[in-house]
Amino acid sequence: MSDESRAPDAYARAGVDIAAGNQAVARYKEVLGGWRHPDQLDAIGGFGGVFRLPAGGDRALVASADGVGTKILIAAELRTYDGIGRDLVNHCVNDILVVNADPMFFLDYFAAGKLDPMVAAAVVEGCARACRAHNCALLGGETAEMPGLYSPGHFDLAGTIVGIVDTSAVPDPARVVPGDAIVGLPSIGLHTNGYSLARALLPRDDWMRPFNGGTYAEALLAEHPSYYDAVRAIQKVADVKAMAHITGGGLLENVPRTLPPNVKAIFEAARWSVPPIMQELVRRGNLTHEEKYRTLNMGVGYTLIVPFVDANKAVAAVPGAKVVGWIEAREPSEPQITIHEAR
Amino acid sequence: MSDESRAPDAYARAGVDIAAGNQAVARYKEVLGGWRHPDQLDAIGGFGGVFRLPAGGDRALVASADGVGTKILIAAELRTYDGIGRDLVNHCVNDILVVNADPMFFLDYFAAGKLDPMVAAAVVEGCARACRAHNCALLGGETAEMPGLYSPGHFDLAGTIVGIVDTSAVPDPARVVPGDAIVGLPSIGLHTNGYSLARALLPRDDWMRPFNGGTYAEALLAEHPSYYDAVRAIQKVADVKAMAHITGGGLLENVPRTLPPNVKAIFEAARWSVPPIMQELVRRGNLTHEEKYRTLNMGVGYTLIVPFVDANKAVAAVPGAKVVGWIEAREPSEPQITIHEAR
Repeated sequence: MSDESRAPDAYARAGVDIAAGNQAVARYKEVLGGWRHPDQLDAIGGFGGVFRLPAGGDRALVASADGVGTKILIAAELRTYDGIGRDLVNHCVNDILVVNADPMFFLDYFAAGKLDPMVAAAVVEGCARACRAHNCALLGGETAEMPGLYSPGHFDLAGTIVGIVDTSAVPDPARVVPGDAIVGLPSIGLHTNGYSLARALLPRDDWMRPFNGGTYAEALLAEHPSYYDAVRAIQKVADVKAMAHITGGGLLENVPRTLPPNVKAIFEAARWSVPPIMQELVRRGNLTHEEKYRTLNMGVGYTLIVPFVDANKAVAAVPGAKVVGWIEAREPSEPQITIHEAR
Repeated sequence: MSDESRAPDAYARAGVDIAAGNQAVARYKEVLGGWRHPDQLDAIGGFGGVFRLPAGGDRALVASADGVGTKILIAAELRTYDGIGRDLVNHCVNDILVVNADPMFFLDYFAAGKLDPMVAAAVVEGCARACRAHNCALLGGETAEMPGLYSPGHFDLAGTIVGIVDTSAVPDPARVVPGDAIVGLPSIGLHTNGYSLARALLPRDDWMRPFNGGTYAEALLAEHPSYYDAVRAIQKVADVKAMAHITGGGLLENVPRTLPPNVKAIFEAARWSVPPIMQELVRRGNLTHEEKYRTLNMGVGYTLIVPFVDANKAVAAVPGAKVVGWIEAREPSEPQITIHEAR
């Protein structure tokens, strides 16, 4: 059963202050509240910002900026650099996919205290490969050497993607009705969220130890996959009404963002499997329901809401896709999401 | 006289390895060389990447990603947060202005070890104000809390801007001919480059000391101005053939990027004044010609190349604008730029 009233403290234990993040977002709204560009179609806080193309007819540009969080510290420690660029691009692709946008171009920002050209090139090459896989231009980027800001061997990576969508193709959450099914696409691992918690629960000394047929390190650095092809395949056979990319905030925060206020999402955790690395983190941290589903994706990387009659076709279109829940009518006093735990 | 053959070492003394940066860029070209999106119109390494808008007629999108370098460490130390956001946006605006693009939207990336919502909001508010001044949407952003990556009180800030331009309005450097004048727009201070050098030459203990009617800190944090209005004013009265934003690499690296191979730029430093903070850095560091003009803007923040007959109209259009040099024919063996020092 969900337990929305209990404050999560697993992230706080790991040094991440979710309340501070929410306060920052609230302050941003104050700061930005006074003015908004007339061509801006979406509020800040969405998966992607939407901007009506001047003289562009029905078309809009969709943009999103992201980082890869402290997964970067694990990659740096293990000197495994190419996956981080791929993870970042795929994260960005998925974010604008929620608005149904096709990627056009991407720009990276790479910063280090002391620039190692081979490391920078490996990271950018990872970006380039993932861009190419999406027919997305790697249009530019910034490489910054900033002595004093980053420790030796450390670096940060962020990126911005820009895509395009017909405004008529932007999903309209108002179409979501009770009885609709929620289709979940499987996650491979943590993707790009929960790494501060993972680093707190899994000490560095454990990383090279065997785990689940590989090592902890391999499980921690598992790919953040792109859901682009899976979503396009489902859209061919099902009427997709709303989507969510399950990143920071987990199912609990990301799914409600795309729901109208008169419905709630009911998840049945027995319907999908949780990757072993997340089971291990839950066990080690003795994580509460709230901590698990707000900090980790817990096995569901992306959700799509489809009519009940389309659900079987949707899951048949993509290996691993499952019906993970459904939509019910909601009273104003009820939570927008409930996750029933597996027995 | 210029002294191109002497390797700069002031930046190296400050912990910034320009050779490593150039190696990284060379590696990027290898990494990216195999594939390029057919709608990408500009090579990596330009001020802004240009992307032909699908079914957009003559229009192209122009994007640029930037950071503010270690100016951020001075801002953090002095707890002066709002100017950094403005500096970043103005830097981005100027970069795509070189391609003649009008800003449409901007996204920020703010990362800290421990998120202070008031600091984050002050930084983002600075971005928002500068965006609004350019009728540019602050379309989104990412705020990341990354314990272990940044020291307490430290943060990083990067941003990406996207603008639009008619492809017929993109300056064509091939039009630059011997006899053209180079108009310079004045810099206020270091803008966003040379701060690792400045921090090496100006110890923290000096920052609050009086300097030039204020303090060193004020001089160091002086605004990175937007040249948007100035450039548009000059374009109304002069045929602007090429432009350059004088950022990292100074006049020596940024001006040649926009010149055809058969011409060279001759600058006459006696024609403009050097802001006192840069005079002080040159004195303290005993900087060579090469170090000065490759690490610092030395008083020229932006250059425009116009026909000789338009030069007087151009400088009359903008307070502080000056003719700072001219274009001459170049033999293949000659440098693309020479800066004659003031006596």
